[in-house]
Amino acid sequence: MKSRVGVGIIGFGNIGWGTAKVLLDNAAEIAQKVGSKVELLKIADLDITTPRPVTVPPNILTTDVTEVLNNPEIDIVVELIGGVNPAKKFILQAMANGKHVVTANKELIAKHGTEIFEAAAKNGVDFYFEGSVCGGIPIIAALKTSLAANNVQEIMGIVNGTTNYILTKMANEGSDFGEVLAEAQKAGYAEADPTSDIEGYDAKYKLAILASIVFTGSVNVDDVYAEGITKLARADMENARELGCVIKLLGIAKRNGDKVQIRVHPTLIPMTHPLATVNDVFNAVFVRGDCVGDVMFYGRGAGSLPTGSAVTGDIMDIARNINCGSVGRVPQLNFGPCAVQSMDEVVTKYYMRMRVNDQPGVLAKIGGVFGEHQVSVASVIQKDQVADQAEIVMVMHKVAEANFRRAIEQIAKLPVVSEVCTWIRVEE
Amino acid sequence: MKSRVGVGIIGFGNIGWGTAKVLLDNAAEIAQKVGSKVELLKIADLDITTPRPVTVPPNILTTDVTEVLNNPEIDIVVELIGGVNPAKKFILQAMANGKHVVTANKELIAKHGTEIFEAAAKNGVDFYFEGSVCGGIPIIAALKTSLAANNVQEIMGIVNGTTNYILTKMANEGSDFGEVLAEAQKAGYAEADPTSDIEGYDAKYKLAILASIVFTGSVNVDDVYAEGITKLARADMENARELGCVIKLLGIAKRNGDKVQIRVHPTLIPMTHPLATVNDVFNAVFVRGDCVGDVMFYGRGAGSLPTGSAVTGDIMDIARNINCGSVGRVPQLNFGPCAVQSMDEVVTKYYMRMRVNDQPGVLAKIGGVFGEHQVSVASVIQKDQVADQAEIVMVMHKVAEANFRRAIEQIAKLPVVSEVCTWIRVEE
Repeated sequence: MKSRVGVGIIGFGNIGWGTAKVLLDNAAEIAQKVGSKVELLKIADLDITTPRPVTVPPNILTTDVTEVLNNPEIDIVVELIGGVNPAKKFILQAMANGKHVVTANKELIAKHGTEIFEAAAKNGVDFYFEGSVCGGIPIIAALKTSLAANNVQEIMGIVNGTTNYILTKMANEGSDFGEVLAEAQKAGYAEADPTSDIEGYDAKYKLAILASIVFTGSVNVDDVYAEGITKLARADMENARELGCVIKLLGIAKRNGDKVQIRVHPTLIPMTHPLATVNDVFNAVFVRGDCVGDVMFYGRGAGSLPTGSAVTGDIMDIARNINCGSVGRVPQLNFGPCAVQSMDEVVTKYYMRMRVNDQPGVLAKIGGVFGEHQVSVASVIQKDQVADQAEIVMVMHKVAEANFRRAIEQIAKLPVVSEVCTWIRVEE
Repeated sequence: MKSRVGVGIIGFGNIGWGTAKVLLDNAAEIAQKVGSKVELLKIADLDITTPRPVTVPPNILTTDVTEVLNNPEIDIVVELIGGVNPAKKFILQAMANGKHVVTANKELIAKHGTEIFEAAAKNGVDFYFEGSVCGGIPIIAALKTSLAANNVQEIMGIVNGTTNYILTKMANEGSDFGEVLAEAQKAGYAEADPTSDIEGYDAKYKLAILASIVFTGSVNVDDVYAEGITKLARADMENARELGCVIKLLGIAKRNGDKVQIRVHPTLIPMTHPLATVNDVFNAVFVRGDCVGDVMFYGRGAGSLPTGSAVTGDIMDIARNINCGSVGRVPQLNFGPCAVQSMDEVVTKYYMRMRVNDQPGVLAKIGGVFGEHQVSVASVIQKDQVADQAEIVMVMHKVAEANFRRAIEQIAKLPVVSEVCTWIRVEE
């Protein structure tokens, strides 16, 4: 057992200072639980002068990343700069130097996970990334260890706090998307450029990582469908409520025969679903395993200290591996490529809202088109009419998405239909 | 790396057959994730003739426990008979024979954990027990690994499915305790002798285990306060709802200076608390860490396959340790005894319901007694009167339990008070 495990952090931003604070504030307990002192020896960042909410010994700060990467005292390199470059280069360099690596970099793992896993194996080092998905929620470790006996059938997750905050506000306050986004930006819950969150890219990276673990294979991130929340209107939130549902931006991964579905999109779920009451910036991942049944993990999906908790948990796990000589003890569970179903093949229920002429025979025409494409209507609600226009809300029975899309295209062209406003997938 | 890790199960009851089914049905995936075949070699039980819902090779069944305990092919012994004796004897014997041990035996660990941990360390074997708390929910591993960087401030858990089922029914259907218990027994959710569940003993064992992990010390199970749900009436469920709360049987463990509180009792929690919507037989554990903030774990707290999932997860973890030579990699986090606060010292809010004479000055008399004991009333609801009796519901500000109890004793003796019906602790 080593008396000291040395840690170096690259990136002194929000997650960087959070991790530093956890390592410094809880050093005694961490040492006791690991059996060795876990010491933060260096933090590299281009900016080491802006004050952060943690006091670190000034001599550990450096602008020279090689003081981390090439430091013989450092056993574990923690990459917390985010993005693909130069994060990937630093990680591969650290591994080539025999360092174990911890990261919270979802984009990098989603895009280049397989290459990094191979580099870790080749260099005989560990690579952990709990903080990359859902901040402090220990979902990755649970899937790789405690729940490993299960064939996971399905995961559904609220994995992006910004959009969950926006949707919660829209539902509770009857506000429109634009208003709430502006408010969220003011409150610091949405970034100045919110594209990655509101278009579902952030969720896509996280879902790709979770799916690759539960389906034990590599996921091509370009195969993951992602649709954001920008088209949702107040009316949809209200209609969902009338249907006993809420709308959440869900990451969904399901087994379907030899293929898997991996998709991010706004989704109607029943109010009784455990995910329905996950509100504000909280995240949650719902897992359905063939043995365990339904389990759910809930917590803060972002933030300096919650993510710092996950990163430090990884550091401690690797420190235990170092002390036991058990590097590579839990494999990456990446046993080959996952075959991802195209969205055309996905079979699900749908909600749709459209404006039509308020005249006899409209429903018959719409129903006729749906019938041609084997789309079966489960329920229709006619909303208040404005002028000579009526708003109609329909819920469809399960049908392949290709059929539904073809029907919708044709319906949008009917002279009696003014607009197909939104359509949203429905899960149970 | 061993080509085969041998497993023997003692006890072919509900958890025994569930574990056997998981090991057999998912053998291929388990082998792939572990890197070795994990093979079920023997199942010992006094009854090997009653059919179980799993088909096992007949030659692995035995009535002779020594075929497991002394079997040189068996690396991991899984104790699933429950209770203290002879489970403890079998476990210690297995360890003395160099076998790693997995169990789901909450009572044994709560009462004799320290002794077994020491035996495991002395014999250089692993001892895992994820299935002992909350069935398939991976709470123990999460606390020992992913969340290990945290000083956990507080855990609150719904850790008993039977009582949660009863309380859910009482709340939703307006039924009384006795009715629902009878119904739960019929439905198989409560045992013929329900004492251990409804009096909170089962929850006490589970909470003692969780508390010993988060507070990294041994807990004397006799120091854990346990109060069941038998005194709760329909009126209390209704009053709770009026107060914006629900009543749950919670296991609560909190740090309080150098001491800890560990207590099981019915508790009013706000409807907005994540635990408030955990219903029916589901369990959930809410954890508040100094870094991670609030996280919650939700799932099935019992059942053959959910618990089998947890037990098999432990088997896989130990198999990985065997393959890496990393036995004892995660220590038991038992660094000394926990000092448990007496209930007299616990400071909390209270709900109380009483019947009084419907006459002027009653509230003044009651208020006077509370005042003498530094108990401050937050709110009073006067309920409908029956004959010349009125029902009064009070909620108290935070106060030490000793003060509250003394006040209640004196109030019960006031001539104007017919009965102090119930009082229940309140958490936020």
